[in-house]
Amino acid sequence: MTSQGTSDGVERFRTHAPENLQERFAHRAAHMKPSEIRSLFAVASRPEIVSLAGGMPNLTAIPMETMSEIVEKLVREHGMEALQYGSGQGHPRLREQICDVMALEGIRANPDDVLVTTGSQQALDLISRIFIDPGDVVLVEAPSYVGALGTFSQYEADVVHVQMDNDGLIPDALRDAIKTLRYQGRKIKFLYLIPNYQNPAGVLLPADRRTEILDICREEKIFIVEDNPYGLLGFDRPSPNAMRSQDSENVIYLGSFSKTIVPGFRIGWALVPQALREKLVIASESSILCPSNFSQMAISSYLANQPWRDQIASFCKLYKERRDAMLESLDAHFPKAATWTKPQGGFYVWVTLPPEIDTKAMMPRAIVAKVAYVPGTAFYADGFGSWSMRLSYCYPTPDRIRQGIAALGKVVEQEMERRGVPQIN
Amino acid sequence: MTSQGTSDGVERFRTHAPENLQERFAHRAAHMKPSEIRSLFAVASRPEIVSLAGGMPNLTAIPMETMSEIVEKLVREHGMEALQYGSGQGHPRLREQICDVMALEGIRANPDDVLVTTGSQQALDLISRIFIDPGDVVLVEAPSYVGALGTFSQYEADVVHVQMDNDGLIPDALRDAIKTLRYQGRKIKFLYLIPNYQNPAGVLLPADRRTEILDICREEKIFIVEDNPYGLLGFDRPSPNAMRSQDSENVIYLGSFSKTIVPGFRIGWALVPQALREKLVIASESSILCPSNFSQMAISSYLANQPWRDQIASFCKLYKERRDAMLESLDAHFPKAATWTKPQGGFYVWVTLPPEIDTKAMMPRAIVAKVAYVPGTAFYADGFGSWSMRLSYCYPTPDRIRQGIAALGKVVEQEMERRGVPQIN
Repeated sequence: MTSQGTSDGVERFRTHAPENLQERFAHRAAHMKPSEIRSLFAVASRPEIVSLAGGMPNLTAIPMETMSEIVEKLVREHGMEALQYGSGQGHPRLREQICDVMALEGIRANPDDVLVTTGSQQALDLISRIFIDPGDVVLVEAPSYVGALGTFSQYEADVVHVQMDNDGLIPDALRDAIKTLRYQGRKIKFLYLIPNYQNPAGVLLPADRRTEILDICREEKIFIVEDNPYGLLGFDRPSPNAMRSQDSENVIYLGSFSKTIVPGFRIGWALVPQALREKLVIASESSILCPSNFSQMAISSYLANQPWRDQIASFCKLYKERRDAMLESLDAHFPKAATWTKPQGGFYVWVTLPPEIDTKAMMPRAIVAKVAYVPGTAFYADGFGSWSMRLSYCYPTPDRIRQGIAALGKVVEQEMERRGVPQIN
Repeated sequence: MTSQGTSDGVERFRTHAPENLQERFAHRAAHMKPSEIRSLFAVASRPEIVSLAGGMPNLTAIPMETMSEIVEKLVREHGMEALQYGSGQGHPRLREQICDVMALEGIRANPDDVLVTTGSQQALDLISRIFIDPGDVVLVEAPSYVGALGTFSQYEADVVHVQMDNDGLIPDALRDAIKTLRYQGRKIKFLYLIPNYQNPAGVLLPADRRTEILDICREEKIFIVEDNPYGLLGFDRPSPNAMRSQDSENVIYLGSFSKTIVPGFRIGWALVPQALREKLVIASESSILCPSNFSQMAISSYLANQPWRDQIASFCKLYKERRDAMLESLDAHFPKAATWTKPQGGFYVWVTLPPEIDTKAMMPRAIVAKVAYVPGTAFYADGFGSWSMRLSYCYPTPDRIRQGIAALGKVVEQEMERRGVPQIN
């Protein structure tokens, strides 16, 4: 704090920093450190950089005129409700509509079991809060969503990654992990996974693996947290039914309107087993009192009055075009020694380079070449992933994607040379 | 979950409840129980009941036409930003305007030290998160805000109440509490207080006590959390300068637009000492990723284009009229043995009845008489307050307030008779 005037004789500014500050924090505060993505985003958001780093949806497909009419009418006709405090669990009408949305992925749910949250990030936070004691184990895919890893670590969970392949989480690897952890006497609280177009890997978990994983977790009494922000963004065919459609009592399902409508209203939800509902609602009230009535009613009106399924179809078209641009450019510009996933939906491609490459160390050279990505270690709690990177195709235009991948391909080739990695031809 | 059809042969619903559920929760989940206010609100919100229970602001003074134009224009002109993800710390323009609002109470602040939150409830949650280890002590006024008590208890704090009188927290009582707790070897993390028109007591902390309390806490290295949702709602004169205006390094200041504009956008903020800022921002990102750009930009536009200080003045007029109605009715209809606070602003009157009266036990009889309040025990972490009650005058019309207080006065008199309390004449 800079020194301030005291013209009125009342203000007295102290300039000392708080003493013994570290001791005054809670133990968990030691885990509150800036993520690798965080410091990166400041650089990557400069206009001259092609950012393949962010996960921002592309809002060019949103009918802004219609949206402006929706919010205008909402305040004019229902302002006294929309601008007032609301229910802690969420607006009853929206909770019904959320059940209709989930029905598209085979889920039959009761609106009473839906909790509306400030984005599905808040649902991750609340689930952590009701389940995680320090030292408890949370199982996640390898790699997994950086935002989930951050939350689990703030609750002092021990995050254990379970191996994936191009078809997502490997059931046998899950069995082995559980057996090993149980042998060590560890408490496993839940398995967190993103079955559809995973963040960051872009892969899809097939129906048979879903069933097998459900069986394993039910048998082992481990809750499943099924995070599904991208499920409706399949490019060529619908994704398999949600895991929650097969099990209403062992699966906590997380949904979001951030990728299918807009993120700016911050509306996500959790569909929870009845036995967990009361605790989650109380945890949410203690966290934010209630989600925004305005935001909920705006989404509700959009769902009621707009052809939202057509809207999602136009999102899919837009993202598919960008996915194609990225995969074609990777083929054209990346060295043979690199491999990558071929997403059938969602936002992300996961690239694996030769293990000599350190994608974090390479970042400054990529920035010089005017392209940004997220280094693979961000998606691991254990330091793994140093020769991987996440590339997002959701936001830039296809031309910018091609330009960025071409530039990045050169950076990777130079890095391989620098590290003495032989080029495969 | 009710049993479901399995027409497509894919869904398989289990009907067993999760086994050993209590053991699977985190330790803190034991503190997630419905509050007394919670179960009450379902009953109190019936239209035939005069609810003196809720703390909902009265939105009849809000210019709905103007607000509808603001949100319409916001989407039309800035939709690509307003509907996108935003900064975790909050929108830069709004953080500047928040500094202007705080200047009204003598605070000079840097927008870099402001964190925008989903209502100030979220700020309470984040502060608890960075400071409270299980068993740590949090000092609060006696009585204190029910929502804060709930959050502190979820973080397993030991909440210790410090005595108040009609001028708010008593500095000597604070000294004694600190000395005693330190003697017991306890770790005191912060003092939480509401200096202006306190919730639930309605009292105002005078300037000299503010300075004294600041000195004590600085000396004892105890952070102060100054919660100030009602500070601009003084009826006859402005409230004394905020405590934060005297100390930028030991005071965490919480503000909110819920009572001065509208609660439906869920926008509050924390102004934090620089040394705490990074951890709070990271904690918030882990909790909700980012606050709603739309909500923030709507508030920002309202502040930029509307005569918001006049608007707050009309709120004050509206609430003062209701306060007068309540105090006059209490004089006319409540037994002599009852005492109550005389708020100079805000929403609440705190009534103390003879100690034989149990206001929680009396509630069903009040509901029969078509009036609701909040029993005093809700505002204590330790079971105290059973012969007190909080009455809110913010929401009902003056006539309804008179009607409700008249009815409640009779209920109290009957209760005194029932309990054999002598009537004073």
